[in-house]
Amino acid sequence: MAGHITDKGITELGVGLISVGWMGKLHSRAYQAVPVVYPELNIRPRLVHAADTAPDRVEYARNVLGYAKGTTDYRDVLADPEVDVVSICAPNLLHREIGVAAAEAGKSFWIEKPVGRDAVDTAAVAAAAAAAGVTTSIGYNYRHAPAVERIRELIANGELGRITNVRAVFFNGYASEPNGALSWRFKKDLAGSGALGDLLSHVVDLMQYVVGPISDVNGLLSTVHRQRPILPMGQATHFAVIEDGELGEVENDDYAAALVRFAADSPAAGAVGTLEASRVIVGPQCGLGFEVYGTEGSASWNFEQMNELKLALGRTGPNQGYTTILGNASQGEYAAFQPGPGNSLGYDDLKVVEAKKFLVAVTGGEQRNSTIEEALADAEVIAAAAASAVDGQWHHVP
Amino acid sequence: MAGHITDKGITELGVGLISVGWMGKLHSRAYQAVPVVYPELNIRPRLVHAADTAPDRVEYARNVLGYAKGTTDYRDVLADPEVDVVSICAPNLLHREIGVAAAEAGKSFWIEKPVGRDAVDTAAVAAAAAAAGVTTSIGYNYRHAPAVERIRELIANGELGRITNVRAVFFNGYASEPNGALSWRFKKDLAGSGALGDLLSHVVDLMQYVVGPISDVNGLLSTVHRQRPILPMGQATHFAVIEDGELGEVENDDYAAALVRFAADSPAAGAVGTLEASRVIVGPQCGLGFEVYGTEGSASWNFEQMNELKLALGRTGPNQGYTTILGNASQGEYAAFQPGPGNSLGYDDLKVVEAKKFLVAVTGGEQRNSTIEEALADAEVIAAAAASAVDGQWHHVP
Amino acid sequence: MAGHITDKGITELGVGLISVGWMGKLHSRAYQAVPVVYPELNIRPRLVHAADTAPDRVEYARNVLGYAKGTTDYRDVLADPEVDVVSICAPNLLHREIGVAAAEAGKSFWIEKPVGRDAVDTAAVAAAAAAAGVTTSIGYNYRHAPAVERIRELIANGELGRITNVRAVFFNGYASEPNGALSWRFKKDLAGSGALGDLLSHVVDLMQYVVGPISDVNGLLSTVHRQRPILPMGQATHFAVIEDGELGEVENDDYAAALVRFAADSPAAGAVGTLEASRVIVGPQCGLGFEVYGTEGSASWNFEQMNELKLALGRTGPNQGYTTILGNASQGEYAAFQPGPGNSLGYDDLKVVEAKKFLVAVTGGEQRNSTIEEALADAEVIAAAAASAVDGQWHHVP
Amino acid sequence: MAGHITDKGITELGVGLISVGWMGKLHSRAYQAVPVVYPELNIRPRLVHAADTAPDRVEYARNVLGYAKGTTDYRDVLADPEVDVVSICAPNLLHREIGVAAAEAGKSFWIEKPVGRDAVDTAAVAAAAAAAGVTTSIGYNYRHAPAVERIRELIANGELGRITNVRAVFFNGYASEPNGALSWRFKKDLAGSGALGDLLSHVVDLMQYVVGPISDVNGLLSTVHRQRPILPMGQATHFAVIEDGELGEVENDDYAAALVRFAADSPAAGAVGTLEASRVIVGPQCGLGFEVYGTEGSASWNFEQMNELKLALGRTGPNQGYTTILGNASQGEYAAFQPGPGNSLGYDDLKVVEAKKFLVAVTGGEQRNSTIEEALADAEVIAAAAASAVDGQWHHVP
Repeated sequence: MAGHITDKGITELGVGLISVGWMGKLHSRAYQAVPVVYPELNIRPRLVHAADTAPDRVEYARNVLGYAKGTTDYRDVLADPEVDVVSICAPNLLHREIGVAAAEAGKSFWIEKPVGRDAVDTAAVAAAAAAAGVTTSIGYNYRHAPAVERIRELIANGELGRITNVRAVFFNGYASEPNGALSWRFKKDLAGSGALGDLLSHVVDLMQYVVGPISDVNGLLSTVHRQRPILPMGQATHFAVIEDGELGEVENDDYAAALVRFAADSPAAGAVGTLEASRVIVGPQCGLGFEVYGTEGSASWNFEQMNELKLALGRTGPNQGYTTILGNASQGEYAAFQPGPGNSLGYDDLKVVEAKKFLVAVTGGEQRNSTIEEALADAEVIAAAAASAVDGQWHHVP
Repeated sequence: MAGHITDKGITELGVGLISVGWMGKLHSRAYQAVPVVYPELNIRPRLVHAADTAPDRVEYARNVLGYAKGTTDYRDVLADPEVDVVSICAPNLLHREIGVAAAEAGKSFWIEKPVGRDAVDTAAVAAAAAAAGVTTSIGYNYRHAPAVERIRELIANGELGRITNVRAVFFNGYASEPNGALSWRFKKDLAGSGALGDLLSHVVDLMQYVVGPISDVNGLLSTVHRQRPILPMGQATHFAVIEDGELGEVENDDYAAALVRFAADSPAAGAVGTLEASRVIVGPQCGLGFEVYGTEGSASWNFEQMNELKLALGRTGPNQGYTTILGNASQGEYAAFQPGPGNSLGYDDLKVVEAKKFLVAVTGGEQRNSTIEEALADAEVIAAAAASAVDGQWHHVP
Repeated sequence: MAGHITDKGITELGVGLISVGWMGKLHSRAYQAVPVVYPELNIRPRLVHAADTAPDRVEYARNVLGYAKGTTDYRDVLADPEVDVVSICAPNLLHREIGVAAAEAGKSFWIEKPVGRDAVDTAAVAAAAAAAGVTTSIGYNYRHAPAVERIRELIANGELGRITNVRAVFFNGYASEPNGALSWRFKKDLAGSGALGDLLSHVVDLMQYVVGPISDVNGLLSTVHRQRPILPMGQATHFAVIEDGELGEVENDDYAAALVRFAADSPAAGAVGTLEASRVIVGPQCGLGFEVYGTEGSASWNFEQMNELKLALGRTGPNQGYTTILGNASQGEYAAFQPGPGNSLGYDDLKVVEAKKFLVAVTGGEQRNSTIEEALADAEVIAAAAASAVDGQWHHVP
Repeated sequence: MAGHITDKGITELGVGLISVGWMGKLHSRAYQAVPVVYPELNIRPRLVHAADTAPDRVEYARNVLGYAKGTTDYRDVLADPEVDVVSICAPNLLHREIGVAAAEAGKSFWIEKPVGRDAVDTAAVAAAAAAAGVTTSIGYNYRHAPAVERIRELIANGELGRITNVRAVFFNGYASEPNGALSWRFKKDLAGSGALGDLLSHVVDLMQYVVGPISDVNGLLSTVHRQRPILPMGQATHFAVIEDGELGEVENDDYAAALVRFAADSPAAGAVGTLEASRVIVGPQCGLGFEVYGTEGSASWNFEQMNELKLALGRTGPNQGYTTILGNASQGEYAAFQPGPGNSLGYDDLKVVEAKKFLVAVTGGEQRNSTIEEALADAEVIAAAAASAVDGQWHHVP
């Protein structure tokens, strides 16, 4: 077990951060919130060491986020004996190198998803973590929405009956602007796939978390905007919109869909469904949603209405229909945040839950968080979908 | 042109009805509503001759619906010189025989969908109609919802930009009860396919009507309740629920899904999407809905909220989001029914629109209604999905 | 009892119509629909005699609607021995004269609301009807929405517990255009009050129908657009928009609100609430809606989603929330129109229900329809609200 | 100006907390979040001194929340020279005493609402604050919802035209259980009024913040559950449910409603509307919502869907309707929390905004937060409604 236990029974944990951006800020705030939101855990994370290649970000980590030390070399963080756990928020391209290094340094880590550009990257990190015996946690934040946890529980309890089919989607418009710059996200060697890896991976994870393992996939990819303006050197952000610029090729998918079958040897045996994702959608803003249907009921959720759960139980009767259930104490970690029903949790709160689950696992509690093995299972479904989209055949997930 | 024009410029049309059930009643009411809802057409249908194998239904047609004559042999209707147009509301199994006979008798006809049990049946009817030169109209009633017509127009006008993807579904629970009797609907020789032909065909038609022709399909079928209680001879209705009965095999699909590509030589070139249907869903009641996404906007509709259209135009801005548009005069035939916005049209009103379109086409006006050729195009997509579900390959629609 | 019973047990009723406009058309279609929608009643209305001051409308009534006879003098209709029941669709201004005359002619009648310009008018009609012993029915069409009937039943059954408060509204935008012409609706001597009598009267009726009698009122009126362009002689319709026209004074209210108490000697004792109406609202189209709260649950409905009922039962629990219930067979007259759940009824269907209830009452069946006594009770609440708006005091409803 | 500016230009502020409960925790977390969420402010609050009458809460404040010092006497906090600003989270009953003492100690303070039990209490605090010249901030957290800020801006910009009417409500079920214990909330001397002061005060504040000052009120109060079980000494919590207990009288209102007029000398001149609140509602959970109507458009919001804004602009047109706008960067402080649109903010985030506004005002920036003068204006509307409920007359707000 990582960390240090004080004579008052408080577990102190030194936190390292690799890559200090928006996500790094979220991780840092989440660590700090844990003692207040979950005082009963007696866990006190300390922000010890932050790394970023950009010196101004290192300064920010120290002056604003409150890390005691800073560096431009992530290896300093991994070598720091005061660091017990590490958050890896670097771009996907670097996940493999840093993840493996963290494992080899014996540090338990919390890493953002997808882990690497493809299943090969993820497998390498998984192998290193297994060899080192470190605890891992993946940034599958949507799992922690109280409504999602509740639907998972309803299914596990059999309240929806035998699951027959799912319909899940992640429609996001971050690349909907046709003149949005040709950033690394659109390049195969830097990003791997497009909407498939970036967005459908969230859909796959949610469905595997909530319903069960997917065993067979038939995929379809589409690139809607085939060319985009080349991003001038050292200029602008990744979301820059460039008029009349020179155009380059988009190398991966804007839209991905899959027919799926759930594993015959799982409780979801016989269930089938459709999964879809787009990064160029116009209309939805951050539309990660799913519907799960069973022989006794059905439930649905969408991140755009994160605090609402829709539930239909029973097949007939005068009052049959979907009930819109607001947040309440029976849903996941809701009660840790709000004393009464009907209040909203925010996106950032989900990260607090994620930090909590990670730290509980690190300190020897029940492993309720996502693991690198689950990230690998996700990546394998994505890989099967990618292969299927090429040959038009159904692919079995290994 | 069928019918008789009076010296006042009124076109009188004699109506025949084959099969007098709930749908036959709807057709009859719809014919009668046309002169009142559309007085400017100067069309007066007269209910002339009704056929049903059940004598009490023949009586009902005469005494309640108001047909002048009745018969238990549908050939009498087709042979009646006073009959100008025929409504064919018989079960799918008989569509081919009656449809061909009607065409051969030179009667224009309005027939319910799907036309026959499969594409072979539909093709036979289409060939007979083409040979005879009669006008045909198919019971694709959902097309006539004002919101659907409006979305079709928005797409045709380019207001949604280039269409990128669709997501459409028909989730109906009419067979959700596991102990629902093993009626003809579950038998291959009587019904053809299950949810695929009965429900997904509506989805396919709507998408072809609203967006454009589908060229390639990858299908997936699932039978959720593999056995059902055998319906005792001459007993109960098709929707009977039987406890502890002897079980027989369900021979067709409860759930159908498909990945689709739209035709490269159509305005919808490049568009892809998912279609789904279930007849055993729990939660939705009559959930025929679709979302259409384009590069400039998106729109959606669901029959369960028939009078609402959701529309998002534009990619950014402070007021960006979906607008819920109630019925108004800019939508299809809305203004023929309601003088002000925000009122509801009912399901039965859609049949009035269908009757109107049929009668306009029959009397030489613009053919705005569905035709047997469209029914065949629909059946071919369904056949391709069925074949794909067997071999796991993509199938091209002929 | 009115009408004639044939040897087959069919009751034939001759129908007269006074004023042939959009509403007259609706009444006529509704009469004709009754035998088909409700065959078990064995009632056959015949369209006998129609009156309108405009000769072209008389022609329309005969040629399109199908009335056997026509006249420009409504007294001819009342004097016609073939006429058993009369629909009075004339403007409010004429309700008193025609209603009294119909009663004196011994004709049962169906009259649109509000009956007359104020409670004095309504009382006169009520007195005449009582003296003559004729059956009356008022055009409170919103009562017939299946969801409304269901809420009424839930309350009567005690499923919502003791009713604590209501919140009801009719927000309509028919006069929202500031340059909309100064038609008769804005004149006190022609229309009586404005939104109060035209719209809030529907709200009051619904609340008295669904919850119980209102005993005390505190009203507030507001005129939003105090001047409107004068309608040039013989020009345009009442909804004309006139730019740069000469302005005249609006003489009645655009907006009305009231605090209310329900009668202490009724099942709704102790319940209070707010009622509101506007004819100049921007946003809602035809937003007649209400929420009813009780100690065990609550329910709401809005005409803009006519086919949806929202219901919350119980005070706590993990699945607590509002269930959105689509149309189904347990709601009012739904099953007479649709064989399965989730289909939409239309506005015009409500008029069919109204015709049916009227004809059942006329032929001696249970009086389930609205009566002139209820119209008077409604008018008295409206009168109390009007008086309260003047003196700022609570007014007791007589 | 309070606080201390370091040589790096960072303003350090010592924070004192009086009463350490759930709300005290929220204030503490909010102070700590400010530097991370708003780094550009260069403000660093330090948690210095916390007071609570319960020693275990003092311990919690030191060990979990991170206050440097603790005390059971709030005067110690006010006397502490290291304390620059004070959060007052004590029960309403103590607001007056502590608020006056804080002002007299020269400490700027952030106090929860309502300030005291009635307008007299609030006025006393306001007078003391004015005399001392301290900065004040009130816990009107709902103001900070990004959608609320956006609606306020739309109105101020005139995008909704002239405001005609509002419809606002706070329906909360915290006392809906009839056997809920007779806590201090139901006692006049301890709580003042019931739903009126506790809930309607939020409604009044929101309407005055978003629309403008209310000048005239006509109120209605109702007590739904007139007796409740007496809370046994030293037992259970305030929300305990007690079966078969001895009953005592509820002394204040469960439900409050008011007709209102906005001030004739304000931009909202001519606007009227209804306000309502209930603490015993069954159905809504935390339903604070409002609709604002103007001559050019309307907008609505409800805390239960905190992250959604509904907006209708324009009176006609084919696409007219309400747009559901998710959180985006044009709304209030949204962008300080989320980098892209469509993410949810949580209730706790609103408190961070509140802390930020308070600290900006304290450090000499623009006063964008609520003040004790606004709390007094709110209390005076509430007092007028209370008086009106007694005599049935309209009351003018002083």
